[in-house]
Amino acid sequence: MPAILVYQTSTLLFNVAFYVAIVAQAASAALAAGRRNMDLFGVCVLACATALGGGGTRDVILGHYPLSWVAAPHLLVVVCIAALATVMLSRFMHHLRWTFLLLDALGLVIFSTIGCDVAISMGLHPIIVIISGMITGIVGGILRDILCNDVPLVFTGQLYAIVSIIAGGVYYGATVLGMSYDVALISGIAVGMTLRVVAIVYNVEIPKFSYERDPR
Amino acid sequence: MPAILVYQTSTLLFNVAFYVAIVAQAASAALAAGRRNMDLFGVCVLACATALGGGGTRDVILGHYPLSWVAAPHLLVVVCIAALATVMLSRFMHHLRWTFLLLDALGLVIFSTIGCDVAISMGLHPIIVIISGMITGIVGGILRDILCNDVPLVFTGQLYAIVSIIAGGVYYGATVLGMSYDVALISGIAVGMTLRVVAIVYNVEIPKFSYERDPR
Amino acid sequence: MPAILVYQTSTLLFNVAFYVAIVAQAASAALAAGRRNMDLFGVCVLACATALGGGGTRDVILGHYPLSWVAAPHLLVVVCIAALATVMLSRFMHHLRWTFLLLDALGLVIFSTIGCDVAISMGLHPIIVIISGMITGIVGGILRDILCNDVPLVFTGQLYAIVSIIAGGVYYGATVLGMSYDVALISGIAVGMTLRVVAIVYNVEIPKFSYERDPR
Repeated sequence: MPAILVYQTSTLLFNVAFYVAIVAQAASAALAAGRRNMDLFGVCVLACATALGGGGTRDVILGHYPLSWVAAPHLLVVVCIAALATVMLSRFMHHLRWTFLLLDALGLVIFSTIGCDVAISMGLHPIIVIISGMITGIVGGILRDILCNDVPLVFTGQLYAIVSIIAGGVYYGATVLGMSYDVALISGIAVGMTLRVVAIVYNVEIPKFSYERDPR
Repeated sequence: MPAILVYQTSTLLFNVAFYVAIVAQAASAALAAGRRNMDLFGVCVLACATALGGGGTRDVILGHYPLSWVAAPHLLVVVCIAALATVMLSRFMHHLRWTFLLLDALGLVIFSTIGCDVAISMGLHPIIVIISGMITGIVGGILRDILCNDVPLVFTGQLYAIVSIIAGGVYYGATVLGMSYDVALISGIAVGMTLRVVAIVYNVEIPKFSYERDPR
Repeated sequence: MPAILVYQTSTLLFNVAFYVAIVAQAASAALAAGRRNMDLFGVCVLACATALGGGGTRDVILGHYPLSWVAAPHLLVVVCIAALATVMLSRFMHHLRWTFLLLDALGLVIFSTIGCDVAISMGLHPIIVIISGMITGIVGGILRDILCNDVPLVFTGQLYAIVSIIAGGVYYGATVLGMSYDVALISGIAVGMTLRVVAIVYNVEIPKFSYERDPR
């Protein structure tokens, strides 16, 4: 299989989904950078941290070396091109807030789904498989938001972390039930995207925890 | 020894202390989350990062795999239950600021004390043993505060990092002097908690460094 | 070679440059801490994260164990002494903003240059060599700024990440061309420092990306 296919043990669809997620996360980072008046190199650094930081954090936590972008450095080039293209195209975009949220959702759901695979291949516990997917899905966005000095999206607003868990759970459940990898992947992505978009449109929220007195 | 005992080479008291610290850190994260209006899944994510992030960071830095919660996934469940229970109980709590500071102190001191053990078992230098304890003790709280977009508690206010170093130092010194693990553990925790509580009550501060002119 | 020389496979000049960079980064952290009213232990923690966090992050990402300061714990002592000395001397300093920027630049350029070496010794791809240098160069400052709750310097203002890439590129290119390590090192540092200082003095900026509409 050519070196450009990073998920070498999985199907072509896995690799296509992986690149879609990386490009989506890079684009979401470029849009976030625009609010912060960053220069174009800062945009590239932020995009790499966002698009590759989730999988990288998962690999470091699981001791799964080498990291994907260290083994496949062309991923860094793909991320930078995607980020710079977003910068150039953004002046023609309308509805930037929606674009940002949809790109973020796409990265979240795809990474959550295919992120389960590393833990499965290492023979880890089902809980860790789901958590591995969640780390892959949410950490990139968390890094983006921390580097932009925001409270991460995962901690505010509508369904987010639970979308990641459900997308990963659908994928993992489908593979356990004997479905093909491709069907499991599409199922997980479809369920996750639907849930996240519905949550944004109808402002579906999990009960929040707040109190008036300040603990500090 | 049953799998629920995570510190398999150490005593029962070590494991009890470990669970107490994890629950305390999860609860401190839940209280911090309440100020930020987070949803219940966000609370769980923040609690896991806070309660397991210190030991995880230490293990990644020392190359000590697998991480405790990857080997013992039930820890994630314990943390989430502790965080959600805190959310439910917090409406009946008074003095939330004090509760937050005491839970944070308990996690700080216990993790600092038992965190030395991993470095000792790897045969590392005494300085690294103390630093290993300090990383285990303070990084969870730092992650909690960064994810909530605060300046970390360790960098403000009363004695904090030095409490961690002294608690770890007492534990390590006691074991070097031939005391039993349990006595060393209790000594480290007692000295550390006393110091931290005295520092908060009497507002004991290390000399601070500040200047008027802004370097940026 | 004595244990105090951390880069044991390289020349004496490498080790001198390494210590200069560590001291410079520790001092930049101490100056940043002064703005935040931190106590002296907080200053030491921040200085260690800043001075050793870049190389540590690189080593964790590349799976290059043990980390330099775990193998050579005296580095922690050097960093703390440098930070506390900066605190004591800062009251006699003028032009703190310039001092801060120059110390930060020195750490950035030296770490970027010598940070390429680890990746070269591991036989990694040229892109990864440059990125390894960049991570070593910029992550310490990013950690410093995040822990101080600022938007990292790398994402604002004048040429920064590109200085790191060029300094590393000059070093790597010179070694590939067969120059001695010392000549390559001095070339990389000289080019990088010149570029960064010119960028600050003449306010050289890469085109920035910004738009008026807010995506969130």
